[in-house]
Amino acid sequence: MATLCRPAVAVPEHVITLQQTLDLARSLHAGHPQLPLALRLIENTGVRKRHLVQPIEETLRHPGFEARNRLYEAEAKRRVPQVVRRALDSAELTVRDIDLIVYVSCTGFMMPSLTAWLINTMGFRSDTRQLPIAQLGCAAGGSAINRAHDFCTAYPEANALIVACEFCSLCYQPTDLGVGTLLSNGLFGDAVAAAAVRGTGGTGIRLERNGSHLVPDTEDWIAYSVRATGFHFLLDRRVPGTMEPLAPVLTELAGRHGWEASALDFYIVHAGGPRILDDLCKYLGVQPEAFRFSRATLTEYGNIASAVVLDALARLFDEGGAPERAKGLIAGFGPGITAEIALGRWTGARIGRQRSVDDAVLDLAR
Amino acid sequence: MATLCRPAVAVPEHVITLQQTLDLARSLHAGHPQLPLALRLIENTGVRKRHLVQPIEETLRHPGFEARNRLYEAEAKRRVPQVVRRALDSAELTVRDIDLIVYVSCTGFMMPSLTAWLINTMGFRSDTRQLPIAQLGCAAGGSAINRAHDFCTAYPEANALIVACEFCSLCYQPTDLGVGTLLSNGLFGDAVAAAAVRGTGGTGIRLERNGSHLVPDTEDWIAYSVRATGFHFLLDRRVPGTMEPLAPVLTELAGRHGWEASALDFYIVHAGGPRILDDLCKYLGVQPEAFRFSRATLTEYGNIASAVVLDALARLFDEGGAPERAKGLIAGFGPGITAEIALGRWTGARIGRQRSVDDAVLDLAR
Repeated sequence: MATLCRPAVAVPEHVITLQQTLDLARSLHAGHPQLPLALRLIENTGVRKRHLVQPIEETLRHPGFEARNRLYEAEAKRRVPQVVRRALDSAELTVRDIDLIVYVSCTGFMMPSLTAWLINTMGFRSDTRQLPIAQLGCAAGGSAINRAHDFCTAYPEANALIVACEFCSLCYQPTDLGVGTLLSNGLFGDAVAAAAVRGTGGTGIRLERNGSHLVPDTEDWIAYSVRATGFHFLLDRRVPGTMEPLAPVLTELAGRHGWEASALDFYIVHAGGPRILDDLCKYLGVQPEAFRFSRATLTEYGNIASAVVLDALARLFDEGGAPERAKGLIAGFGPGITAEIALGRWTGARIGRQRSVDDAVLDLAR
Repeated sequence: MATLCRPAVAVPEHVITLQQTLDLARSLHAGHPQLPLALRLIENTGVRKRHLVQPIEETLRHPGFEARNRLYEAEAKRRVPQVVRRALDSAELTVRDIDLIVYVSCTGFMMPSLTAWLINTMGFRSDTRQLPIAQLGCAAGGSAINRAHDFCTAYPEANALIVACEFCSLCYQPTDLGVGTLLSNGLFGDAVAAAAVRGTGGTGIRLERNGSHLVPDTEDWIAYSVRATGFHFLLDRRVPGTMEPLAPVLTELAGRHGWEASALDFYIVHAGGPRILDDLCKYLGVQPEAFRFSRATLTEYGNIASAVVLDALARLFDEGGAPERAKGLIAGFGPGITAEIALGRWTGARIGRQRSVDDAVLDLAR
């Protein structure tokens, strides 16, 4: 039985507040006919601040796709190893114990993927399997958990490492002026997260079942347009409404497991935006409090893409975990529109609150 | 026990012969100081012809990264479904039987990946897992087989579909003039391949063990430089020599399985170039005949990236398969430098020679 252990998360040292975001939108798009709408949408996200790999002045410049990708690589190499080390420490594993690295990231592109560099630099075994996923966007956090779960089901003695490295600010496209883009510019943030999945032992979520779902004919709702200037994020206005078709999918999967989706002990879901959380409360019939971990991620960091579920899960750990065998659901949502869902139970002793989330920022500043 | 079934392969209708390739290189690079070396290297590949998604005049034009990616998407949508259908037919499966689609492709980038479109268009179940891999290059063929194997080990009743879609000609970069690039321009070809991996039943290779290996500190040897003009393929001159460190890895993995790598009944390996096959003969101590499937792929289609192992495997099937329980090895090699290796035995009756390889071309032309 695979156990998803305590995630480690680090957000970059450059901070932009909601107020600064609104001021920027006002000055950059002064004459934009839909500016008032965009400002309202940004305010409604509930995002109070975000963390970026560069100061905002640099972020607003577009030095070209090539320079952006080089920056992605440099920042990933600078920031990922220490997060990986913390995740392994929390799981009481060393690099030599890892059999599979699932590296998910949709905000930069490298071939070979960062997995090769991590193996060479951090001393992972040369027979470590590499599974880089670049095309599942925000759903990739859930996908990484599920593929690691499958792997440990196939090889019960194995351990997997999940890394989510998302520098959304490196996909900022100053020439894109649709309302969806203006909203995205005020919504997404940067973060690195990692977590181990242990085939045996470990404290955290014992993964029991996973499932995937593609909402029919919504391929264009969340997509990249791939251009000379890099990845251009396209966000359809219908996306916030996708919990209506997806909530029954969560209910059905839980039902097949003999569980009631409306009566679980914890929920760790991708906080793409506030409506997703509000609608899940409504359609699943649970209290907003149930989504406090995901809500906190959104408020403190913005939408950090595939790293959201790992950060929200870290907040459950920060709260001391859950009672033994407490039941919960993890779900990532992203392009496709794809949902990657996991069901599991808390296992291991309740744990002490080890570190505040903001320590992660300080780590990196030091 | 997962069984890798008969692959289906299709190559595009536009053909370029060795002679045309050499003539082109002579006219395009008339004054290039290393032209004679490049011509010699191209001749030595043993590639007699390649198939391209566009006529050569179009291939030589670079319409920009955006147009190239759009073409990639259009060609993939045009060519992949019929190959998938044939692979499923061979495996006696329908789209509804598939639980996981592993889609590997390093020559175009889409988010969402083609998996979402395939599910919507071809009628796969909405709970089909999507595993798109873009960053393992030529090793991804082996990786797809191995991850499908892992998945069916975790869920013995499940079935996976592997799709390798490689349009290498869409990564042609007219301004790159290094000898490695000139050689690559004469080496790579386009193809689509697919195969099912059945958790139970099926005729083909019963997968018994898999392994991965990263050759230390060779990250830069095969890599993409990601630029405004798209993916620029970088090939180090040391790459052809990598079978020296990798042959012992194959031997060691086979040994752990109680097998002798030098005494297997069939070998299906990535034919990146002729030296890989020559060196494997030398270091494993096997006859060149052992690599006839991979050699035929290289000769007829060039290096078709992640599709090579599936095409070479299709040729084993075309020969009538192998005796029951015949032992064999499959290996993909690519950036990292990564090897993805599988060991398996032939299972199911020997089969009739169903169709010639070139029928695949005709299929598409019809």
